[in-house]
Amino acid sequence: MIPIQEMARRAAAASQILKTVSGACRADALKRMAGALIRVKDEVMAANAEDLKAAPDLSEPMKKRLRITDKIFDYMVNRLREAAALPDPVGRVLEGRVMPSGLRVEKIAVPIGVVAMIYEARPNVTTDAAAVALKSGNTVILKGGSESLRTNRVLAGAMRSAAVEAGLPEDAVQLLDSADHKAVRELLRQEEFIDLIIPRGGKSLIRAVSEGTRIPVLKHYDGICHLYIAEDADPDMAVSLTVNSKCQRVEVCNALETLLADAASATRILPLVAEALKKQGVELRGCPETRAILPDCLPATEQDWDTEYLAPILSIRIVHGIEEAMAHIARHGSGHTDGIITSSLELSRRFIAGVDSASVLVNASTRLSGGGDYGLGAVVGISTDRLHARGPVGPAELCTYKWVAVGNGQLRA
Amino acid sequence: MIPIQEMARRAAAASQILKTVSGACRADALKRMAGALIRVKDEVMAANAEDLKAAPDLSEPMKKRLRITDKIFDYMVNRLREAAALPDPVGRVLEGRVMPSGLRVEKIAVPIGVVAMIYEARPNVTTDAAAVALKSGNTVILKGGSESLRTNRVLAGAMRSAAVEAGLPEDAVQLLDSADHKAVRELLRQEEFIDLIIPRGGKSLIRAVSEGTRIPVLKHYDGICHLYIAEDADPDMAVSLTVNSKCQRVEVCNALETLLADAASATRILPLVAEALKKQGVELRGCPETRAILPDCLPATEQDWDTEYLAPILSIRIVHGIEEAMAHIARHGSGHTDGIITSSLELSRRFIAGVDSASVLVNASTRLSGGGDYGLGAVVGISTDRLHARGPVGPAELCTYKWVAVGNGQLRA
Repeated sequence: MIPIQEMARRAAAASQILKTVSGACRADALKRMAGALIRVKDEVMAANAEDLKAAPDLSEPMKKRLRITDKIFDYMVNRLREAAALPDPVGRVLEGRVMPSGLRVEKIAVPIGVVAMIYEARPNVTTDAAAVALKSGNTVILKGGSESLRTNRVLAGAMRSAAVEAGLPEDAVQLLDSADHKAVRELLRQEEFIDLIIPRGGKSLIRAVSEGTRIPVLKHYDGICHLYIAEDADPDMAVSLTVNSKCQRVEVCNALETLLADAASATRILPLVAEALKKQGVELRGCPETRAILPDCLPATEQDWDTEYLAPILSIRIVHGIEEAMAHIARHGSGHTDGIITSSLELSRRFIAGVDSASVLVNASTRLSGGGDYGLGAVVGISTDRLHARGPVGPAELCTYKWVAVGNGQLRA
Repeated sequence: MIPIQEMARRAAAASQILKTVSGACRADALKRMAGALIRVKDEVMAANAEDLKAAPDLSEPMKKRLRITDKIFDYMVNRLREAAALPDPVGRVLEGRVMPSGLRVEKIAVPIGVVAMIYEARPNVTTDAAAVALKSGNTVILKGGSESLRTNRVLAGAMRSAAVEAGLPEDAVQLLDSADHKAVRELLRQEEFIDLIIPRGGKSLIRAVSEGTRIPVLKHYDGICHLYIAEDADPDMAVSLTVNSKCQRVEVCNALETLLADAASATRILPLVAEALKKQGVELRGCPETRAILPDCLPATEQDWDTEYLAPILSIRIVHGIEEAMAHIARHGSGHTDGIITSSLELSRRFIAGVDSASVLVNASTRLSGGGDYGLGAVVGISTDRLHARGPVGPAELCTYKWVAVGNGQLRA
């Protein structure tokens, strides 16, 4: 393996080239990567089987995350093709004007530079991250989980060859090919060459990365997501949105964790919601007022309001009006995704204005908060940071900008 | 003085209110602040005189920065009024679309929250920072230099009263009223309440702040700014732009530090430029090729190319073509502001694409890189960071955004 500093230096050198390459060329590279992946499918599957065999002690959920099925393989290929087809985020004129002096000023999207992605098992992050990074003109250093190293080697190798075919530097995509923790620590020290680190995984990983580096880190923390069923919510919609938000996939950051039911409609709506959730095997934990309406609901503790279950458990609280709902969200939420179910324009206005979360939803499933359903195409995650990128992190969020001012001799007076 | 943690807590509480206040109300508060300043002008001037008297050992440049003249006072008042008149940066729809499902998705600018400003002598930063912060719906904690504490007390007091008059929380503006370094260290630990820190001052201040906190820091480092005189530059423009970029004000970050003269035109243009600079008392330090053209130019050392003089000194290097010019800028520049003087559209295109600086200028003075001349109105500085805000930091840059998605029952499939 090449030394980490050399790897970072190469990424920065490749970035100088990638920053000036046309969007057509980057899209071509992504298409070629999809093609290269298909050509090495057998190798990918064989390496993945070896990875799985080499780690017999992995938990079943971890094995599930590590395993590439045909369906996941197709998804990975399609993600690269979809990214190729997205509009180019680089070179967008974000704003601009001609000043009274005649100076033409424009704010133009440009690549950030070198992005390092540190993640755990899922090998599809390897191709997803490369797709988003290249789409936005960044070079990427990939550090996946050690248990998927064989798989990632084949994936990265195919993408690197495809980059060269497309006339891009091979080092547009690099894999940190080591299971050694020292390598990651060394990577975190490359502030001279790396512009952004994106850790994807558990809280402890994100915290360890943030505290071990001076490089900016885009953080993806908890989603303690809420739905507030307002007094005038449509009962059918309350049922379908709650069930979908909680059950469509329980282990993800935009799954519902706490339901806030307005006292004015709870007696009418909550039993319907509870019945549907119980059919899905969801355990309910409620405040005393909830339990008065739903007698077989377990009691919720204070800690429940601050818990991201990532499991078929839902906490339920009765609130008295929208202000109390928003106060609960402000106190216990994680600023990720929070929604209201209402038929009132005024309540929706107040909720949108008053809830300060990355995603604020009205009459929609919390599971829709993300890149695909927002029309961003490929994303590398959902940021819980407030600065630079908030919510889904797609190609546009991996851009920065520069100011370009063109004149004909303008001076400062 | 109230404890720092309590101050930060109050700022966060005030921020909850300020986030939902209308732009009209914030603009009204800024206008009232301008009015309040005028009403306490005598007090401001008296406090400022006391500050100056209390620090007789200050250097002359420091005294100059601390002193509020009538002209500076008027400038401070006008900055508040100008900020009031700017368009509201909050609530801008940054992008949006209706998805095929019917979900309406919008990305909307919202305030960051609580901004802490840590700065040195100039008391005008006290009002400028408050203006930009309030304009963008943020609450601000101001920590000015200890030598300007009396002045800042009067300024902050007037602005706080005006905020209350306008119906805003008093704690929309707070002054950290202490000369104690421990207070700053305590401020840096308030990550629960403070969303962004902006240090303004020398490198050592910025470095100390960045390393002492987990709160995001917007950094304003060096401006090692370049002008490249291309082979086809208009000689008159080369002279006027170089003189204005270097001499209009030497001690600021967007002043010119290194001139790159193309070998193809240097013999013709450089003597004219040098003569004009010498009339302004600028010391020239050149590479050997420069000295062959300008015999009385001093020799430049390697270190000169990496130096931000902030003084009437200019380094000059002969380069052979635009690639060499851009390579010099990439190696020695600080990514702040770099410009080209050319009459060729093709050279300007290549320079704009190839130079990765916060501001890239064509045929304009480096001194124009900034908020006013870019049409942003008030700014709190020029960021040398790549993420979130790059270049001038105005009201728009003190915003983050949230995604708002409005549907009628959309589920995730």
